[in-house]
Amino acid sequence: MTRVVVDVMLKPEILDPQGEAVVNALPRLGAGQVASVRIGKRIELEFTEGTDEKVMREQATEIADKLLANPVIEDFTVRLPDASEAEPTA
Amino acid sequence: MTRVVVDVMLKPEILDPQGEAVVNALPRLGAGQVASVRIGKRIELEFTEGTDEKVMREQATEIADKLLANPVIEDFTVRLPDASEAEPTA
Repeated sequence: MTRVVVDVMLKPEILDPQGEAVVNALPRLGAGQVASVRIGKRIELEFTEGTDEKVMREQATEIADKLLANPVIEDFTVRLPDASEAEPTA
Repeated sequence: MTRVVVDVMLKPEILDPQGEAVVNALPRLGAGQVASVRIGKRIELEFTEGTDEKVMREQATEIADKLLANPVIEDFTVRLPDASEAEPTA
């Protein structure tokens, strides 16, 4: 597995107007049990075959820190995707 | 756990200009082992306490299908986040 996922989300204290817009649209769908929605970015970094996991994590963290996330308003998480993420639901 | 994550990514055959822009910026960071970058959306749906997991998955799939993903150019995956996603890396 040579793929690393970087998830970038707004910090909890930051207002999420996109998420609010989705919440406001939910009653039309009858999805009453959803309390809140937060929307962020998912970035998949594909590394060349054989790259060491430690190197992948370090490079992904540096790329996220410098290019992908705005540290003032966003947090990011670097992780290896699990099997359930491989196949799209639809 | 009452949170469900919906990952929305462009279909593989669709060009990803945002991802290309990141790839082009990587040499400046010295991140030579990254072969490709794909950028999509991560949506966290927080359900009210005690909602049954099956109901959460069904509602999240319907919301993704109708509101969050464009079926012509995007695929989506519905899943429960694993422990590594709870704590931001930075």
